[in-house]
Amino acid sequence: MKIKVINPNTTLEMTKGIEHAAKTAARPDTQIIAVSPEMGPVSIESYYDEYLSIPGVIEEIKKGEEEGVDAFVIACWGDPGLHAAREVTDKPVVGIAESSVYLASMLAARFSVVTVLPRIKTMLEELVDSYGASKKIANIRTTPMGVLDFERDPAAGMEMLRQEGKRAVKEDDAEAILLGCAGMAEFADSLEKELGVPVIDGVVAGVKFAESIVDLGKKTSKLKTYKYPEKKEFKGTLENFGQSQASIK
Amino acid sequence: MKIKVINPNTTLEMTKGIEHAAKTAARPDTQIIAVSPEMGPVSIESYYDEYLSIPGVIEEIKKGEEEGVDAFVIACWGDPGLHAAREVTDKPVVGIAESSVYLASMLAARFSVVTVLPRIKTMLEELVDSYGASKKIANIRTTPMGVLDFERDPAAGMEMLRQEGKRAVKEDDAEAILLGCAGMAEFADSLEKELGVPVIDGVVAGVKFAESIVDLGKKTSKLKTYKYPEKKEFKGTLENFGQSQASIK
Amino acid sequence: MKIKVINPNTTLEMTKGIEHAAKTAARPDTQIIAVSPEMGPVSIESYYDEYLSIPGVIEEIKKGEEEGVDAFVIACWGDPGLHAAREVTDKPVVGIAESSVYLASMLAARFSVVTVLPRIKTMLEELVDSYGASKKIANIRTTPMGVLDFERDPAAGMEMLRQEGKRAVKEDDAEAILLGCAGMAEFADSLEKELGVPVIDGVVAGVKFAESIVDLGKKTSKLKTYKYPEKKEFKGTLENFGQSQASIK
Amino acid sequence: MKIKVINPNTTLEMTKGIEHAAKTAARPDTQIIAVSPEMGPVSIESYYDEYLSIPGVIEEIKKGEEEGVDAFVIACWGDPGLHAAREVTDKPVVGIAESSVYLASMLAARFSVVTVLPRIKTMLEELVDSYGASKKIANIRTTPMGVLDFERDPAAGMEMLRQEGKRAVKEDDAEAILLGCAGMAEFADSLEKELGVPVIDGVVAGVKFAESIVDLGKKTSKLKTYKYPEKKEFKGTLENFGQSQASIK
Amino acid sequence: MKIKVINPNTTLEMTKGIEHAAKTAARPDTQIIAVSPEMGPVSIESYYDEYLSIPGVIEEIKKGEEEGVDAFVIACWGDPGLHAAREVTDKPVVGIAESSVYLASMLAARFSVVTVLPRIKTMLEELVDSYGASKKIANIRTTPMGVLDFERDPAAGMEMLRQEGKRAVKEDDAEAILLGCAGMAEFADSLEKELGVPVIDGVVAGVKFAESIVDLGKKTSKLKTYKYPEKKEFKGTLENFGQSQASIK
Amino acid sequence: MKIKVINPNTTLEMTKGIEHAAKTAARPDTQIIAVSPEMGPVSIESYYDEYLSIPGVIEEIKKGEEEGVDAFVIACWGDPGLHAAREVTDKPVVGIAESSVYLASMLAARFSVVTVLPRIKTMLEELVDSYGASKKIANIRTTPMGVLDFERDPAAGMEMLRQEGKRAVKEDDAEAILLGCAGMAEFADSLEKELGVPVIDGVVAGVKFAESIVDLGKKTSKLKTYKYPEKKEFKGTLENFGQSQASIK
Repeated sequence: MKIKVINPNTTLEMTKGIEHAAKTAARPDTQIIAVSPEMGPVSIESYYDEYLSIPGVIEEIKKGEEEGVDAFVIACWGDPGLHAAREVTDKPVVGIAESSVYLASMLAARFSVVTVLPRIKTMLEELVDSYGASKKIANIRTTPMGVLDFERDPAAGMEMLRQEGKRAVKEDDAEAILLGCAGMAEFADSLEKELGVPVIDGVVAGVKFAESIVDLGKKTSKLKTYKYPEKKEFKGTLENFGQSQASIK
Repeated sequence: MKIKVINPNTTLEMTKGIEHAAKTAARPDTQIIAVSPEMGPVSIESYYDEYLSIPGVIEEIKKGEEEGVDAFVIACWGDPGLHAAREVTDKPVVGIAESSVYLASMLAARFSVVTVLPRIKTMLEELVDSYGASKKIANIRTTPMGVLDFERDPAAGMEMLRQEGKRAVKEDDAEAILLGCAGMAEFADSLEKELGVPVIDGVVAGVKFAESIVDLGKKTSKLKTYKYPEKKEFKGTLENFGQSQASIK
Repeated sequence: MKIKVINPNTTLEMTKGIEHAAKTAARPDTQIIAVSPEMGPVSIESYYDEYLSIPGVIEEIKKGEEEGVDAFVIACWGDPGLHAAREVTDKPVVGIAESSVYLASMLAARFSVVTVLPRIKTMLEELVDSYGASKKIANIRTTPMGVLDFERDPAAGMEMLRQEGKRAVKEDDAEAILLGCAGMAEFADSLEKELGVPVIDGVVAGVKFAESIVDLGKKTSKLKTYKYPEKKEFKGTLENFGQSQASIK
Repeated sequence: MKIKVINPNTTLEMTKGIEHAAKTAARPDTQIIAVSPEMGPVSIESYYDEYLSIPGVIEEIKKGEEEGVDAFVIACWGDPGLHAAREVTDKPVVGIAESSVYLASMLAARFSVVTVLPRIKTMLEELVDSYGASKKIANIRTTPMGVLDFERDPAAGMEMLRQEGKRAVKEDDAEAILLGCAGMAEFADSLEKELGVPVIDGVVAGVKFAESIVDLGKKTSKLKTYKYPEKKEFKGTLENFGQSQASIK
Repeated sequence: MKIKVINPNTTLEMTKGIEHAAKTAARPDTQIIAVSPEMGPVSIESYYDEYLSIPGVIEEIKKGEEEGVDAFVIACWGDPGLHAAREVTDKPVVGIAESSVYLASMLAARFSVVTVLPRIKTMLEELVDSYGASKKIANIRTTPMGVLDFERDPAAGMEMLRQEGKRAVKEDDAEAILLGCAGMAEFADSLEKELGVPVIDGVVAGVKFAESIVDLGKKTSKLKTYKYPEKKEFKGTLENFGQSQASIK
Repeated sequence: MKIKVINPNTTLEMTKGIEHAAKTAARPDTQIIAVSPEMGPVSIESYYDEYLSIPGVIEEIKKGEEEGVDAFVIACWGDPGLHAAREVTDKPVVGIAESSVYLASMLAARFSVVTVLPRIKTMLEELVDSYGASKKIANIRTTPMGVLDFERDPAAGMEMLRQEGKRAVKEDDAEAILLGCAGMAEFADSLEKELGVPVIDGVVAGVKFAESIVDLGKKTSKLKTYKYPEKKEFKGTLENFGQSQASIK
């Protein structure tokens, strides 16, 4: 099967890392297509970045339809555009935050997220709450490092995750750690060994769940919330997002 | 003071209606600037439409900064881009869904929303939940009419709102009705007379709350969640959204 | 318009302070009538005080009807008698705790309350929960000072608020501070400057929301929960609270 | 032991019925003192009535201290003044709504309340929510009959409860029925026989719980929330509520 | 009346302690039968232990039916098998965790549990949540001591409870302490004296609530959730649990 | 890999159906071992049945350890013994209810469960609530048919599911249907075709999630809640459940 992994930011080095993680997790017979959108921010660290990454994500979903993709993974821990993506295609679309939360729920009773800048803490609180995990999340721990800081200085990133991970286990009653950024896959294994609890990278979780859903032949429900977008005109810079096909009523 | 009312969709006829409602509600000394973005969908009836309306909304917020605007109202009942808008400016930004919910909470114990197509019911459920109103909302009632259907055929729209409004009062224990679309302002007064309960249009509520916040000299907290976006590059079609100013740390 | 601001306690010095804050916030064309009830406690720091302040509050609401008042503000952070007040009149009635919570929700993602004695913490927790803000409230911080201690020794009060406010910002992830007592208005501006986050006094918030609701011509829903009290006899000391007019059925 | 059962309304006929129910439920060695306050409404059917019944309730609690009462039951399904009563005495105070909810939780998985006028539905929703029962309550069913209508025309009352009770069992998945008014004790047994599910009168539940707590020698926690009211002056009609004794700090 | 108190673990020394506590609390005319099941773990400190104690508990309930028992108390703070027990008999069955939570709710606004090993913290969190007390529970404090450690070394146990109890009062805003294990009854009185807040042992709470329910002549609702188990065959070691009587439909 | 699918009831015909569904969903390189415990009820339709199925389930988990099993699926929609199973092994254990809920959450915004007898509705409500899905579950629909009735008369079962499924879509706003019993796998595909929304069988969902977790090399967290059971003696019929190995501290 073909799974398209979309890194919603436009930093190709990071996309390469995500691609590597996805391919490691994927089955031999699964083809991984990892991309960044043509437009959008080089990293996502605010509502501003997140919303402005969505048009690019949607374009990649639409292209995926033509590319014969079987499922999509949105590889940013804010799951930007997830619900819109489910409107644009009937192929399964999973977010890595969502996948991390459900996977962790099957492995541990309580868990903490370790992520980037403090400003996104509230964003993530509301995100995990929307996945029904507010009682299971022990804490959302932020660091002074931004998304690309982890790319630039992996050693410092590893040390930061180690520190916060240890505090999560010791202070939060966390029994698993969720890595709250798509660029942290490389740290998961060594952290897991050090901390002695499951350390979950969302990219690989998303790929496996996508494979599972495709194996089961399941598609997104098109009954109501995730129907195709209504047929309508778009204006200005985004006019090519206009919908010609009618929504299935 | 100057209040900029942004209709996130690109249908200027609808913007005119919103402008009219806003001016009726505004104080004599309040200048209302009502606009539609240059880019985006002609109506918002899905996650797809909502997310794709946000870049245009953000542009209008940024322009507003140069125009010396004192506060912003986002005039679509999904409050698209509200949190991002609060990052982009320190001037108050209020959404009309948010304003409707808080105003209704001061007038009635329980209330229902009457809005457009069934597909947005879940979107609105999660929105009002994020405003803490899940216990106060008796029901979210949808209609077979889309946003522009209410523009095209106001008589049919009024009849539809009358029917659902009556059912909300009779079947939902609703003690007030929230009109779940920015294009419904014109129906509020006659509906209120017919139904005998407060009928709340979000545009006028948003304008009054914006005036109030400006009068109080309050601005959006820039401490953490709503800090200015991080300084970074954007690529492709959206490159002009790149941030040169550093975020206030 | 005429807005009656009711300080539910019977300390007139405090009422003067509240009147001053209200007048500063009100528009030139708004007449502020600030009163204390004739009966009741000199300060409100328990359920006992709160409930026993309500008969006096209700008397002032009833008088307000004769005085041609357009809206009421209940100026104690427990919003004593708010729901009963909404039964007694169809004019809008807002509480300052309620107003503080909704205003803060439009300016900050998370906020803390700083208030008087520890014993009221649970009261306020349940109050803000009833306004749907339990997820938005980072903490409710109490002080060893009672309501009138802040009147008697403003310098000590300011220092106490400064300390707790700083801790709220540093330890609670609070992005705004709510002053949890009607007598704290005078401290708001200097605290806001020092803390660098919005500091919200409920009295001024309540006045602005009351003005807004009157401008919009909205009244309390009389359909069910807030119908006029049922016609009935009262006995003993409170006999004059007997209802002769029939409730609107 | 001495248990004082306070009917917060001033209708003595109703107090007699409550006394009868309480005595039937009490152990032989338990002395029941059933009273109505000297002041207040003849029935409680609104926030207005409820708040205005509280001063009278508190007076009866205070008198009870001198009468050597061991525990108190507040016999109105709104539990008026419960938290204040717990401040005024260290003897246990239980409400009949609270008692009904806890008793029902030990007998049935889901239950409905059947009560008086529609206007109190929201009051009761928030009350049972404060007791943690929002998930266990299947429905709160109201009737067109007021509190005293049940006194005046018991046959009509019984028929009304029968109808709503049957609907609760059939339509709400209710596995027990809570009688949402202190004046309904007389109907409990025959209703239980007819409906085939536990029908719970709060008065008898409250008396048994009060006996239990006294047997266990437990008293209300005076640490913080329920400390004695602060020492202070009261003015006007309610001046005799002034506190001379200092609160235990 | 006859109340059967079932200690779900098979440590008879502990059952004796529970029997002593139960008899101290019971009325003279109440006969206490305290037993351990014939099968199961010597202590309960995990989901494994809890689930495996349930068959033994159910056997004791069934025997109780023949013994003419009027009510049952399940004397382990996890309330193992409570819902199944309510299916097997129509006599009231109360759990000691459940009873502790409801009793505490009538005495204090917020409370903490002090219990055994850290591993059960999540179990208890979900248990108290199912009783609607998640907002009232300030904290669940665990100790390094197992259930039988408290039997073996009561002095060390008392010291541990003293320490955690003091921290609960000082750090958690706890206004009462719940002893989270059936073997802690002996410590309650001296702890209460030392801490100055209600200290609640579930065994005595359960006995009093059981007496109350029997006095009221109430039985478990057999309408739906707690109907008698369906008639069916059981295989293997547990074959004698097969149901011959048909469930009341 | 080896996945052991445990049908917690002792009806081998049903186990065969579950085995068939599991093998159809499994990858060619996945070995499915489908078993029923040696002891326990022939079907699970109450708390009684559920708790009494758990010892048998645990035995099968323990055997699985010796059989070199890589992951376990508990194939009953109550997920009996799930948390205990996670204590007994470090291999992943997934329940089919849990898997159904997480899978559905990735395909639809709102969904209903269709299951067996009315008596289990509350059980399932609390189960899905523990998985954080209470807001996503539109309804839990029961039928008059028991577990084995679906085995005995598949045609009637299919008709029943068709009816309730259609009502779920039409009346509940359900956008997907969860089959709330392990014996309903055979009906999923044709129902999905008829209803036009995803129809989810938990057995296949559980198998795919188990495969995914094994592929990722993840194991259950042994830090705290899911540590191995404490070392201790068991008495009577269940003595062979005694733990000799010490729990990892």
